[in-house]
Amino acid sequence: MVSKAVAKYVHALHLKKYRLRHAAFLVEGGKSVKELLSSGLLTERVIVTSDFAEKIQAQLPPAVPVDIVTEDELTKLGTLANNTTALAIARLPQETPLQPKPGSLLLALDQVRDPGNVGTLIRLADWYGLAGVICSDTCADPWAPKTVAATMGSFTRVPVWQRELPGWLQSLPPELPIYGADLHGENVHRLTLRPTGVLIMGSESHGLTPEVEACLTQRLHIPGRGQAESLNVAVSAAILLDNFYRNE
Amino acid sequence: MVSKAVAKYVHALHLKKYRLRHAAFLVEGGKSVKELLSSGLLTERVIVTSDFAEKIQAQLPPAVPVDIVTEDELTKLGTLANNTTALAIARLPQETPLQPKPGSLLLALDQVRDPGNVGTLIRLADWYGLAGVICSDTCADPWAPKTVAATMGSFTRVPVWQRELPGWLQSLPPELPIYGADLHGENVHRLTLRPTGVLIMGSESHGLTPEVEACLTQRLHIPGRGQAESLNVAVSAAILLDNFYRNE
Repeated sequence: MVSKAVAKYVHALHLKKYRLRHAAFLVEGGKSVKELLSSGLLTERVIVTSDFAEKIQAQLPPAVPVDIVTEDELTKLGTLANNTTALAIARLPQETPLQPKPGSLLLALDQVRDPGNVGTLIRLADWYGLAGVICSDTCADPWAPKTVAATMGSFTRVPVWQRELPGWLQSLPPELPIYGADLHGENVHRLTLRPTGVLIMGSESHGLTPEVEACLTQRLHIPGRGQAESLNVAVSAAILLDNFYRNE
Repeated sequence: MVSKAVAKYVHALHLKKYRLRHAAFLVEGGKSVKELLSSGLLTERVIVTSDFAEKIQAQLPPAVPVDIVTEDELTKLGTLANNTTALAIARLPQETPLQPKPGSLLLALDQVRDPGNVGTLIRLADWYGLAGVICSDTCADPWAPKTVAATMGSFTRVPVWQRELPGWLQSLPPELPIYGADLHGENVHRLTLRPTGVLIMGSESHGLTPEVEACLTQRLHIPGRGQAESLNVAVSAAILLDNFYRNE
């Protein structure tokens, strides 16, 4: 069982306001908690079923408080429909300096409001070894439980920044390429792309905001042959990134 | 308001068993209902708020019963957290003959259990104009409300079959290429792939089932450079399909 104070703290961390106030976030599910424990991120507390506690005993840092709870209690504390393993409270990582440089590619997200998509995009950035992901203020919170779950552990490895996107883009050196997906852009199959600069993905329903679109130096189009109007944002980003990295 | 009998019927269609029994399925949300009404699929009934009824009046077929309801009633009938527009009951489409042939590519899904992923994959098949999608018996139901929603309207255009996958694969002509994603497969950037045959995507957590894997004629690998162990199944399929169609 957890104390009332701990339960209240965990519930508060369901909300962005309290994640920012406490500089902490929730990690749910056994696989993600294991990734957390083997990462460089700081763990504040682990709440775990007795069955799962045995499985991760060797990984538990000695100074971290551990609460043993029933599956029912665990599920009530978190946001998952069902949690039979573990939940952890982790410290938000210190932000590293955001310095775009030639020879490395950053992924920027403009108004991607679905936490599952933001998480899948962070996982994708991890797959391609990108320098990190910049989220606009209007994106889903990268530290929301659903986002963290969708990263499948990549939240421990990929640097993430939150920025007012048009302002940040305008501050970049003018020679840095800024790419964006656009139905009227150039066919990516006809270009030889190199992973340097910034690739911006917009919201599925609204595309890039005009202020962000004005900063693009190259518009990219993924050729399709069927009748779908658009692709899921993570799916589009995956295809574009594969086109950037196929020439390396 | 809808009658008790209609409410009962709509609720029954939340479940696969009753979708099969009645050969009908639910389409939720204004955008999907509009796609349905402009498609060749048969609509049994439309349940709509008065505001949205005005917007789609011209599209409503005269013989189809229409119920006007409040947003609250509509939300209670369906599976969405909130529905302010419309819900429709549609007939399951007649299955077309499943005949793989040279010069066209089919996407087969092996144990893809998440309806959001199955829907995104159907949308992707629509983008690339594939011949259709074959779902194993162990996939999420392609006609579940969450799947239909994730297709973003592509449910009206992409032929879908449900099959016992190993048996079906064994029945194919031996010269037909059968591709599958595999970490130890060939680097797709070094191959010149042509969209002919079958591409099989497995479950994210378990990969392809052994019986299905035994049917592959070529294993494909997407090269990554970072530390993520895997990619989301729709993301992987997107990258592979782009590699098939870039040489067309």
